[in-house]
Amino acid sequence: MNKKKIFNDPVYGFIAIPYEIIFDLIEHPYFQRLRRIKQLGLTHYVYPGALHTRFHHALGAMHLMTQAIEVLRSKGVDITREEAEGATIAILLHDIGHGPFSHALEHTIIDVTHEELSLLFLKRLNILFEGKLDLAIDIFQNNYGKRFLYQLISGQLDMDRMDYLNRDSFFTGVSEGVIGYHRIIKMLNVYNGELVVEEKGLFSIEKFLVSRRLMYWQVYLHKTVLSAEQMLIKMLLRLKELFDNGQRSGIHDTLSHFFKNKFDKTSFLDNEFDVLNLFAKLDDYDVFTAIKNNIENSDFTLSYLSKGLLNRKLFKIEMQNEPFSEKYKRRIEENVRRYFAKEKVEIEYLVFDGVESISNYSTKGEEIKILLKGGKVLPMSSCADHGIIPRRIEKHYLCYPKINLSEK
Amino acid sequence: MNKKKIFNDPVYGFIAIPYEIIFDLIEHPYFQRLRRIKQLGLTHYVYPGALHTRFHHALGAMHLMTQAIEVLRSKGVDITREEAEGATIAILLHDIGHGPFSHALEHTIIDVTHEELSLLFLKRLNILFEGKLDLAIDIFQNNYGKRFLYQLISGQLDMDRMDYLNRDSFFTGVSEGVIGYHRIIKMLNVYNGELVVEEKGLFSIEKFLVSRRLMYWQVYLHKTVLSAEQMLIKMLLRLKELFDNGQRSGIHDTLSHFFKNKFDKTSFLDNEFDVLNLFAKLDDYDVFTAIKNNIENSDFTLSYLSKGLLNRKLFKIEMQNEPFSEKYKRRIEENVRRYFAKEKVEIEYLVFDGVESISNYSTKGEEIKILLKGGKVLPMSSCADHGIIPRRIEKHYLCYPKINLSEK
Amino acid sequence: MNKKKIFNDPVYGFIAIPYEIIFDLIEHPYFQRLRRIKQLGLTHYVYPGALHTRFHHALGAMHLMTQAIEVLRSKGVDITREEAEGATIAILLHDIGHGPFSHALEHTIIDVTHEELSLLFLKRLNILFEGKLDLAIDIFQNNYGKRFLYQLISGQLDMDRMDYLNRDSFFTGVSEGVIGYHRIIKMLNVYNGELVVEEKGLFSIEKFLVSRRLMYWQVYLHKTVLSAEQMLIKMLLRLKELFDNGQRSGIHDTLSHFFKNKFDKTSFLDNEFDVLNLFAKLDDYDVFTAIKNNIENSDFTLSYLSKGLLNRKLFKIEMQNEPFSEKYKRRIEENVRRYFAKEKVEIEYLVFDGVESISNYSTKGEEIKILLKGGKVLPMSSCADHGIIPRRIEKHYLCYPKINLSEK
Amino acid sequence: MNKKKIFNDPVYGFIAIPYEIIFDLIEHPYFQRLRRIKQLGLTHYVYPGALHTRFHHALGAMHLMTQAIEVLRSKGVDITREEAEGATIAILLHDIGHGPFSHALEHTIIDVTHEELSLLFLKRLNILFEGKLDLAIDIFQNNYGKRFLYQLISGQLDMDRMDYLNRDSFFTGVSEGVIGYHRIIKMLNVYNGELVVEEKGLFSIEKFLVSRRLMYWQVYLHKTVLSAEQMLIKMLLRLKELFDNGQRSGIHDTLSHFFKNKFDKTSFLDNEFDVLNLFAKLDDYDVFTAIKNNIENSDFTLSYLSKGLLNRKLFKIEMQNEPFSEKYKRRIEENVRRYFAKEKVEIEYLVFDGVESISNYSTKGEEIKILLKGGKVLPMSSCADHGIIPRRIEKHYLCYPKINLSEK
Repeated sequence: MNKKKIFNDPVYGFIAIPYEIIFDLIEHPYFQRLRRIKQLGLTHYVYPGALHTRFHHALGAMHLMTQAIEVLRSKGVDITREEAEGATIAILLHDIGHGPFSHALEHTIIDVTHEELSLLFLKRLNILFEGKLDLAIDIFQNNYGKRFLYQLISGQLDMDRMDYLNRDSFFTGVSEGVIGYHRIIKMLNVYNGELVVEEKGLFSIEKFLVSRRLMYWQVYLHKTVLSAEQMLIKMLLRLKELFDNGQRSGIHDTLSHFFKNKFDKTSFLDNEFDVLNLFAKLDDYDVFTAIKNNIENSDFTLSYLSKGLLNRKLFKIEMQNEPFSEKYKRRIEENVRRYFAKEKVEIEYLVFDGVESISNYSTKGEEIKILLKGGKVLPMSSCADHGIIPRRIEKHYLCYPKINLSEK
Repeated sequence: MNKKKIFNDPVYGFIAIPYEIIFDLIEHPYFQRLRRIKQLGLTHYVYPGALHTRFHHALGAMHLMTQAIEVLRSKGVDITREEAEGATIAILLHDIGHGPFSHALEHTIIDVTHEELSLLFLKRLNILFEGKLDLAIDIFQNNYGKRFLYQLISGQLDMDRMDYLNRDSFFTGVSEGVIGYHRIIKMLNVYNGELVVEEKGLFSIEKFLVSRRLMYWQVYLHKTVLSAEQMLIKMLLRLKELFDNGQRSGIHDTLSHFFKNKFDKTSFLDNEFDVLNLFAKLDDYDVFTAIKNNIENSDFTLSYLSKGLLNRKLFKIEMQNEPFSEKYKRRIEENVRRYFAKEKVEIEYLVFDGVESISNYSTKGEEIKILLKGGKVLPMSSCADHGIIPRRIEKHYLCYPKINLSEK
Repeated sequence: MNKKKIFNDPVYGFIAIPYEIIFDLIEHPYFQRLRRIKQLGLTHYVYPGALHTRFHHALGAMHLMTQAIEVLRSKGVDITREEAEGATIAILLHDIGHGPFSHALEHTIIDVTHEELSLLFLKRLNILFEGKLDLAIDIFQNNYGKRFLYQLISGQLDMDRMDYLNRDSFFTGVSEGVIGYHRIIKMLNVYNGELVVEEKGLFSIEKFLVSRRLMYWQVYLHKTVLSAEQMLIKMLLRLKELFDNGQRSGIHDTLSHFFKNKFDKTSFLDNEFDVLNLFAKLDDYDVFTAIKNNIENSDFTLSYLSKGLLNRKLFKIEMQNEPFSEKYKRRIEENVRRYFAKEKVEIEYLVFDGVESISNYSTKGEEIKILLKGGKVLPMSSCADHGIIPRRIEKHYLCYPKINLSEK
Repeated sequence: MNKKKIFNDPVYGFIAIPYEIIFDLIEHPYFQRLRRIKQLGLTHYVYPGALHTRFHHALGAMHLMTQAIEVLRSKGVDITREEAEGATIAILLHDIGHGPFSHALEHTIIDVTHEELSLLFLKRLNILFEGKLDLAIDIFQNNYGKRFLYQLISGQLDMDRMDYLNRDSFFTGVSEGVIGYHRIIKMLNVYNGELVVEEKGLFSIEKFLVSRRLMYWQVYLHKTVLSAEQMLIKMLLRLKELFDNGQRSGIHDTLSHFFKNKFDKTSFLDNEFDVLNLFAKLDDYDVFTAIKNNIENSDFTLSYLSKGLLNRKLFKIEMQNEPFSEKYKRRIEENVRRYFAKEKVEIEYLVFDGVESISNYSTKGEEIKILLKGGKVLPMSSCADHGIIPRRIEKHYLCYPKINLSEK
């Protein structure tokens, strides 16, 4: 069978499969499942083009990895065929542990992080592929000597981030977020076993950091997206609560397993009752079917949230730099209660606050390293003429139904 | 409430909502439902970016309509505010009657065409919006005096086609299919109440026709897409057959209504048992949930088709200009039977043939009309130096499981 | 010295120099001279961006040649390092024989075609480079066994045409003329020693042919460009006539050599009086300086043409499918005479007609060859579903000053 | 006559002429002359695409002005038709005072700045156009009440800068320098009569500032460009010196006027001997013809510089943060003298140093003003989360012939 498949990609034009094993991994149902998991959850409620899947992102990151390896080799960095294949497998599967709407599910139904699950999938696939993923797993876990390979998968300038920033800005249509990935990759090099950027790439890195901040404020932490995600979390929590109280209707089989059992990291290691395979069945269809099944649920709170999610009647969301006062929250709660006076309302599902934060660039921990023309390596923050002011920003939000008291 | 919303669109940058009523129509659950219906069904199994929805296409077509109206007005064509609004509503809702995977469902479950359903939705919305869609409905049905408004919605160069060719080539990444929509729209004019293209737009039209043919062969009639769609049709037919024989498991409520009843155009007009609202509940989630629910069905044929669809193990498809010989078909059938010797196989669901056809440009019926510099109007096919050779092409296909007899 | 230079190119991004000898050839004053010769002569009077030079075009064509060779090799076509270098040199230098505004000069001052001059330069450089251009010269003259190498330099789909169509549409801003060069090159192959296009490239070829026709009508034969070029021809002819009558002022040294002597092919071969080196000194600066020097010439005709060319007061140009009647021409001539009644006017320099023609695609001679999936090769015109209607179009023009008789 | 001309522009697609007077101004020989003056002088010796002219830039800036005015009006800023026309004229003519290679000529031949000359041209044209440029001149000189109009012509975010950064990055092919001009213009507003940027434009401004710095280092102060420009200055100075000593050959008429006389601001105001019209005859052709005429001059220094400039044999240039030591300079001088031992060399024309500097963003003087969502206006440097570290960088350079001492 011809395993030299080429994918069309609106972002990069074409994506070629570099190794046979990559073809086989892509064909596996574990990986095909990523076709049914949107990269950005409910973001398409704000940016209707943002329907791209984790499948496509994984292919994209793999594509950039191929390019990065080619660039590094052309500069004399020694990367064996095995290492190249290993790193490519690792980036292809780096996000395979994501479930549907992970932001929502990881806080409600699943108690294991997607990083842990990715490793579990890698190990399971390694068994199925008879040890051919050994090196990929070492690189993925940063247990391999050539540290730059790990940094290409998980670091300040890894191929994951490079693809998702690029892809997300492309499909959302937030064109100001598009990054010069091509040029950044061209500027990569290795120094003392660490990934570095050549000096003439500095401007590109600066623009990359501006774009990244922009994507956070305009996409990842967009008010309306936040509101939709929080509604989904509340809806799932309410569904689970009712399930715990004995309600069974409107819950799909696969989902119910995760409601019935409190799976943790240990349960996933338990081979007999195959939790990983159960998890592998979960996708966006399960979550949306749960929403659709409950729009007419007798529980008002659940049905209100479900209908809102289905028909995109989203909660109002306020954002500010300081926490919301208890007094203000109480007032909103009262208004909501009054508005829904005739219904049995669980107020904590309809009025709730929280906080999100983002750092633009941190000088703690791993910094981007710059290889100067003279041969010296400096952390980016010490490069003359290149301004970075590390800052951390926190935003508090408050969500509640868009109600018009005068209406009633 | 601010109804001057702007949508980000990777294709056009920004799409602005031109009228308040458009905002209200978009907000309606009938229209929001289009968010859950992919424009190109299973095409994303070949082009992973092709996940765009009918929602986004409808907005795009509306955007182009706004531009076309502006261009025509700037050339002195008289279009009142009411007419502009009517045409814009008509194009926005022109595809609202589409169900999920309509190619598959219209031949299996639904006996009404999506054009008929669009009209039913338009009429229902007209009641809800208290007659504000009267003019839109007239234009949609070609009952309005200014024929060019209808031609902008349904004609050789309508805004529907203009957007879908553009959008489909964009999201599939088949960049050769991208059309110069901008320039074509700039070249539109009206002559004797009919839509015409100015002479200097001739090259753009030629390229448009080449792109269109290319999109047919590379996307709409792509072998693998055809194979996936045919599998879905067979899967649904088998599901229905089993349903008719009493099997109830694995069938979602909404879908089951359409299995239980044989709805035709008349039933949709029956207001008491509200079939239109029932139909409005159907979306991609129902179809895919049906697939997911049946991967372990005890009926081998159904589960084989479902698993194939879920994990993208698609049937082999052969294509040729002539019909396949009965002899050849028999041989394939035997092979398949032998391969699945241990299973109870319904062969007509696993081995089947069919035919698809396409015309590049027809000189029968409505031709593209060219307004020459001198003021004369000619059908495109009579323009000197502009080559169109009208042709009709038929392709026969034969589908069957990718089996390897030597394996067993 | 580092000869791995990379050029920035707005069209292709980057152009890398593939061989050391290419670097040395580019450095040679013969080649640097192309920096001073615009690719499209006076076309920038209509499209102000069209200032790109033959230098840039030669680099671009070389870039595409590198890509074409890479594609062919990847398909198993045998091309040795020497052949690749030879073909690359040949395309780099294919236009080196162009003088400034060649359309104008080749009909007035220079009696040798630019193709003949290119060969003379190739041979002269071969002496300077000690025989290293032997193979390039063979390929350039179609004296080399592997005919496809010649076809890449001079044929229906050569890299010259590919680059100039692309580059000219880019810099003129006639974006409809942009061709999918990338895809066409990807589809090239060799069959029986001849260049062919793979079947799936057919749509791209069709669009290429449409774009090419469009470029002819919108750029190469643009009315105003034609008018400017004809004015330049007349201006140079008048200048020469006055020179022959003894006038010497306003004529630059280099130019005067070509006025004084009637060089033909033989004179260029005469090494003693080095005509080739003399020719190598000619560039756009000489022609424009001649214009600038004569805006106040005492000869009215010359000064009128010069001033018009300098300040872009161009002649009116009429175009039609048939020749202009003598009667009409006479009438225009009389008007012009009357308008310039006070001046001594040479009417044949101010009122003149001519004819230009273009074929969209010819089935005579060398056709584009298509390699079908089955392995057969067909001329493009016999491919089903791919419409080409070969046609030849002629346009007659008539030029004269934009005068307003009522003014006087 | 139809004055609604549209220019094709590779950068913006199309540029429409907004007012009749603009058409007439463009037609004037003063403005047409800008067609013969390259925007970036000798930069095309490094970036071969950088051949765009001041003519094209002026049209581009005018185009952006039209957009800016439209945006501001749509936000309720009051701009009368007269003001719009005035501002458009002012931006169209803002650079009309530029001579050829102004960096080189303003330090050698011309003692008046191009800003002063622009004003002189504006005033002269105002006479010719019978006072119709009054308002434009007021705006140009910042003598008009609505200060934001002046800021659109000359300020931190003026349309001049917006177009040249955009256009220069486009034609050089330094794609990282491309700025999001479209978005920046969309974010402009007026507050208390001053131009401000709306808060959501902050990221765009940041990227704009990064791009601007990048363009300085990669284009405007590129080593090789600097070297070529300095060679041109030295060549002109030597030519003038020889002229002052009586040499007349090889000097074009127009140029010789500027050699003969020492024109200053006062002489330009002297109407009798019309210096402005004399200046209006100068263009790139004069400078290059001077180069071409002197490649065989008997003065070695002059001919060496001329040949180098013509054939692009440019001087080596060293750059560093500190001034070069006298000792090092002496050593280079000796080497050069030794190398050219047989020639009469004027060493100060062949070995010379200098300094260039650039600020990334200054908080002194006029800062970019940000209009926060709340309605407050802040200088950009005080906006939270938006990093600007104002810095001034100086680079010293040393130029001398690329000689190889071991050669001799």
